[in-house]
Amino acid sequence: MGLAIKKINGLADFDLDSYLSARTAAVDRALAGYLKRYSERSGNIWKAMHYGLFPGGKRIRPILVLAAGELFGAKRKALMPFACAVEMIHGYSLIHDDLPALDNDDLRRGAPTNHKVFGEGMALLAGDGLLTEAFHVMSGAEALASVPAELVLKLVHELSHAVGVAGLVGGQAFDLEAEKGAVDIGVVEYIHLRKTGALIRASVRLGAQVAGASAADLRRVTRFGDCLGLAFQIADDILDILGETAPGELAESGHSEWNKATYPSVVGIARAQERLKNLFDQCLGELARYGKVAEPLRAIAAQVAARALQSNGKSATEEIKI
Amino acid sequence: MGLAIKKINGLADFDLDSYLSARTAAVDRALAGYLKRYSERSGNIWKAMHYGLFPGGKRIRPILVLAAGELFGAKRKALMPFACAVEMIHGYSLIHDDLPALDNDDLRRGAPTNHKVFGEGMALLAGDGLLTEAFHVMSGAEALASVPAELVLKLVHELSHAVGVAGLVGGQAFDLEAEKGAVDIGVVEYIHLRKTGALIRASVRLGAQVAGASAADLRRVTRFGDCLGLAFQIADDILDILGETAPGELAESGHSEWNKATYPSVVGIARAQERLKNLFDQCLGELARYGKVAEPLRAIAAQVAARALQSNGKSATEEIKI
Repeated sequence: MGLAIKKINGLADFDLDSYLSARTAAVDRALAGYLKRYSERSGNIWKAMHYGLFPGGKRIRPILVLAAGELFGAKRKALMPFACAVEMIHGYSLIHDDLPALDNDDLRRGAPTNHKVFGEGMALLAGDGLLTEAFHVMSGAEALASVPAELVLKLVHELSHAVGVAGLVGGQAFDLEAEKGAVDIGVVEYIHLRKTGALIRASVRLGAQVAGASAADLRRVTRFGDCLGLAFQIADDILDILGETAPGELAESGHSEWNKATYPSVVGIARAQERLKNLFDQCLGELARYGKVAEPLRAIAAQVAARALQSNGKSATEEIKI
Repeated sequence: MGLAIKKINGLADFDLDSYLSARTAAVDRALAGYLKRYSERSGNIWKAMHYGLFPGGKRIRPILVLAAGELFGAKRKALMPFACAVEMIHGYSLIHDDLPALDNDDLRRGAPTNHKVFGEGMALLAGDGLLTEAFHVMSGAEALASVPAELVLKLVHELSHAVGVAGLVGGQAFDLEAEKGAVDIGVVEYIHLRKTGALIRASVRLGAQVAGASAADLRRVTRFGDCLGLAFQIADDILDILGETAPGELAESGHSEWNKATYPSVVGIARAQERLKNLFDQCLGELARYGKVAEPLRAIAAQVAARALQSNGKSATEEIKI
């Protein structure tokens, strides 16, 4: 392999599993609380939206909001509305992505996709509902209790940019059209940066801004987010190709890359792993100055990289202590 | 018919056509300006979003934002971002509504629907893009140039509520399920209030709030919006049944009601027209105290009602001077 991942010093004591499970539980509680405002008697639309959020995946995006915010001193309570908004948007994008009009996937995280359970019309509306609810949550009393209106509005503006034509939606559309033609690695990175990267970047930026991070800190955490987002997608693509996950199942990015424009399918597994390793190093570099308080973000990045670097028999990632 | 619509005194001088065409042109210019921020080179997603907004219908919702705002003294420039956001949301709801997963309509305003031109996947994403862009526009610099951040955020919260599970999306979902079973008039009004009414109500409320309307004025304009929204949908349903518009064509509400739970199909044409007349009177009642400055809103309400009251040969609406 030739891939050697350097030890992450100082992480020996950090228990990522505990960190993640505590935050996953907190995010789940908050999401459930927001949905509870709408009666279950709303019928299938409520059930379809709930099904789009529960059971969740690893809640990586909302946890990035929390971790980036905590890095700069924000309280979890102030961060949670933004964390939930980001996860609702992720949920909406998966539901719409799985529809027959796009990926036509029957399975998501090993369970039937939303439209398989509730029908295409209801799944479409459930996605619309989650996207709308994300902006409702961000602009509500919970967010305003801790964050000034000017900043909340700035974050609404930033998130809507990240998930609109210039980001998530544009990336999906580009991907849809790219399927028809030949693609090079520039196109693949362009799609990834928008389709997966934009929301990851927005997640860390939202957290940091809620915490009042300085401009320089925000730039560093933005670069961290950009590298992590691309690493995330490349790792998924490698795992898909290596058969670690079957198409439609458990891809962490949520976007099945089977038979599509992917990094490893264009440059091969080895070069994709080198690129992933390089991105991981850049992630660590951006966090170098922050000491122990950045361990959660380091460990998350390491976990993302480790999944796809250890999957060909050679245990390159044993060196990563997480 | 037995329906006599009283003269709207003082409207003799009011030229609704000029009023509407000036504002339609202004809304069109503003919408085009917002879309222009995304390069046409974004490819089909840009074209599909543009196709979802142009050529437009009568732009009734954004004009209601402007008219309600102007009634209480707001400048058009301050109102325009909110007017555009409302129209983008209307555009998104039509694109998604027309998809095979919901109404499966081939025609909209006499032209092929979005998915017929761009394919289902792209149409789905264009709707997602317009919904997202609505919140981007509302939270942007144009809105903040004239409206304090606290108020903008309140309006984002209110609009996202109006078009989410508790409003537009919930109404669509309820309608989807109602198609399966028998419905009574209560269910029909419930669906209408959410599916069409919520956005009409939000339109006049957004305008009034940008203008800094008092609580009492806001209550009156809200009741006006509620009555107008229901009148709007009932008028459409009557016109559909009377064959004034073919299914899928030119329904002002944008929602084709053919073979669905509609007011006239449940209570008959005559009772639907009586209800419409009654709602129109309520609309005028809410505006009674405002004098000439409310003439645009009166004339819009009269036009909505007139369409469906004159359609059975008896020209009950000649008395309405608009």
